[in-house]
Amino acid sequence: MKCSIITIGDEILIGQIVDTNSSWMAAQLNLLGIDVIEMRSVSDELDQMVTVLQQALHHSDLVLVTGGLGPTKDDITKSAICKLYDVGLTFSATTRDHITAIYAKFGRGFTTAHEQQCYMPDNAILLHNSMGTAPGMLIEDERGMLVSMPGVPYEMKAIFTEELLPRLNERKSELFIQHSTIMTVGEGETVIADKIEPLLTDMPDYIKLAYLPSLGSVRLRLTGKHTDKQQLEETLKHYTAIMVQELGDLAYGINDLSLEAHLLALLSAKGLWLGTAESCTGGYLSHRLTSVAGSSSYFKGGYIPYSNECKTKWLGVAEELFVNHGAVSQEVVEAMVTGLLQNTGCDVGVAISGIAGPGGGTLEKPVGTIWIAVGNADQKVSRLIKASKDRSKNIEYAAVVAMNMIRRFVLKNYA
Amino acid sequence: MKCSIITIGDEILIGQIVDTNSSWMAAQLNLLGIDVIEMRSVSDELDQMVTVLQQALHHSDLVLVTGGLGPTKDDITKSAICKLYDVGLTFSATTRDHITAIYAKFGRGFTTAHEQQCYMPDNAILLHNSMGTAPGMLIEDERGMLVSMPGVPYEMKAIFTEELLPRLNERKSELFIQHSTIMTVGEGETVIADKIEPLLTDMPDYIKLAYLPSLGSVRLRLTGKHTDKQQLEETLKHYTAIMVQELGDLAYGINDLSLEAHLLALLSAKGLWLGTAESCTGGYLSHRLTSVAGSSSYFKGGYIPYSNECKTKWLGVAEELFVNHGAVSQEVVEAMVTGLLQNTGCDVGVAISGIAGPGGGTLEKPVGTIWIAVGNADQKVSRLIKASKDRSKNIEYAAVVAMNMIRRFVLKNYA
Repeated sequence: MKCSIITIGDEILIGQIVDTNSSWMAAQLNLLGIDVIEMRSVSDELDQMVTVLQQALHHSDLVLVTGGLGPTKDDITKSAICKLYDVGLTFSATTRDHITAIYAKFGRGFTTAHEQQCYMPDNAILLHNSMGTAPGMLIEDERGMLVSMPGVPYEMKAIFTEELLPRLNERKSELFIQHSTIMTVGEGETVIADKIEPLLTDMPDYIKLAYLPSLGSVRLRLTGKHTDKQQLEETLKHYTAIMVQELGDLAYGINDLSLEAHLLALLSAKGLWLGTAESCTGGYLSHRLTSVAGSSSYFKGGYIPYSNECKTKWLGVAEELFVNHGAVSQEVVEAMVTGLLQNTGCDVGVAISGIAGPGGGTLEKPVGTIWIAVGNADQKVSRLIKASKDRSKNIEYAAVVAMNMIRRFVLKNYA
Repeated sequence: MKCSIITIGDEILIGQIVDTNSSWMAAQLNLLGIDVIEMRSVSDELDQMVTVLQQALHHSDLVLVTGGLGPTKDDITKSAICKLYDVGLTFSATTRDHITAIYAKFGRGFTTAHEQQCYMPDNAILLHNSMGTAPGMLIEDERGMLVSMPGVPYEMKAIFTEELLPRLNERKSELFIQHSTIMTVGEGETVIADKIEPLLTDMPDYIKLAYLPSLGSVRLRLTGKHTDKQQLEETLKHYTAIMVQELGDLAYGINDLSLEAHLLALLSAKGLWLGTAESCTGGYLSHRLTSVAGSSSYFKGGYIPYSNECKTKWLGVAEELFVNHGAVSQEVVEAMVTGLLQNTGCDVGVAISGIAGPGGGTLEKPVGTIWIAVGNADQKVSRLIKASKDRSKNIEYAAVVAMNMIRRFVLKNYA
């Protein structure tokens, strides 16, 4: 089964918002063996929309459309559907009741803007939206299935999961598609390629390797397509295993396990409590760690001593360290770890201090100079990063390096 | 000038990564008056790539391609270019020298994988990559201009800004495009539509209004296209002004000013110091506040007391409050603010405690129950949010509500 994903809305084409819906849907479809052959973002102009929908229905069995639904003036997906299928609009009492119930909760009434939202193309099966007011629409004819959903991510996800997925599950493909992903951190694409490519010279053509680099980490994805499910699984397993072995401790997990989920599993299994002290990363590391459900089982708490005053007051960093070494120094991050461990009773602590930029750099310590320390009551390990000029990149990179340092510290000292 | 943006790579189509490059490029092109008519993500299969590039060159003057460049096996953009233009590859000594210099910095040598990277299509002008090894490529013939860049965002951005932008600046459009964006927070799309739509009945057709909702906030974007620049500017200015007036304090700024940038401007102008105490948001609010350069001028520091133990130890929250009211309560967040103000000497403090989910909910306090308090030495304002079942959505929404509460508190008490 082939699928095209169409995203509607000028706000994407002018770069005001990033389309995350397509990616999310593709990942879901992939698990069903449905091939996404194209993602396309187009303007919310009626004629162009109709043309693009026609083209997509021509080369796909399934066309998913997001965006262009909602109470306001710029919503025209319904018009495009009416034109494409040559149908009219009918008032849906179900939709009216749903909207009325939602607004009643907030003590608000049903308005004229809402009424407009209740008119639906005659040929559409309405898909219940448990997270918002605008229902999804499903239309099927000899050309294939077209599904339209709102552009708001959590509304789309609710409709997709609750309404569309059960229907798609009944129509799976014959060709099995499987992925195996190895998660690495600490080295770049080239170093990893040099390590593993020699092992893959005999890998069959139906398996492809992709390198998916991000700041500080690289995911290696093997994708196989084959009619024989067992052969596919075994071959993928074989090449995954030899790659993992060769990569050693550069590999921390498989199958899209995030580094933060890995740390949760690693530290909670060992009964270790972690604490953080973040200056230049401003809470981003703690946010990453706590973005995973269950992180309270090992993450006790953190400080964001953004000013030197707070570093001293909260963590007992001696003022002479700022004078002698500067706030961005090995001495200060190690003193931050010491204070952190004392104040929290954590087993392991991590501290970061750096110049995120774009201002604040000096000749000696340019923007991107970041010190990170990890330690426990017995010892500390510190590392100096020389990152980039880009603030958000520096913050993200420092968090990834810090997570990798925590990982290595725990693996080494709590074997 | 019309532009198509093509993104190469199976990792996008299977949903393993989100394409943020297209959005970033579109925003840049938009400022030059270049219309992005389409964004398209396609597989890294040679024949499909060639077809899509041909189609794009057919209906666009400029085609930007990202992805499919790099040292590893899955990089085939160069092959597609060679096939499309019927040219061969030539070794580039400049690229070799650049790569050698980069790796020398890290004490590493030039490898065979790097050598492969130095072969470039005969007809390509190479665009220097100051952030990585793979150069961009620019090819121009009677069909238009094709530019290929690496998929790693910061490398693409460097090439775009340093190499492509100066070239595009020389070829601007005749039709003026202008946007005016009003930033609102605190109400949804429908409430805002009901307020402003009656004022816009006489708005000319060459201006369009779009509602861009995100969690807790809505951006309103007016887009105009006209040959008369002055008329366009004045009309946009007029409708922006009447909308801003009608919206009152729902509108906090214009032109894509983020709420965090607004708070930086607001609090630093008044000489106020802010501190944070985040439980369920785990540092995300502080991260958002400190993502803006210059935030150290008003953000003194924060606590992430994830455990009750830390809430008591660091912020002096009385243990009886947990027993009598629970960690997620008005009493606890207000006590957190009190402790925070005492420990930091901040003027204004904000505290958050809630159940982010998916676990931890009770009948009385389901997942999504979040208390937020903002206060100073004289008074506190607290608010209960009943958010969703989605962890990341709850964290993001709580941070946006908290920022809005800070804004309103400061506007009211430090007028």
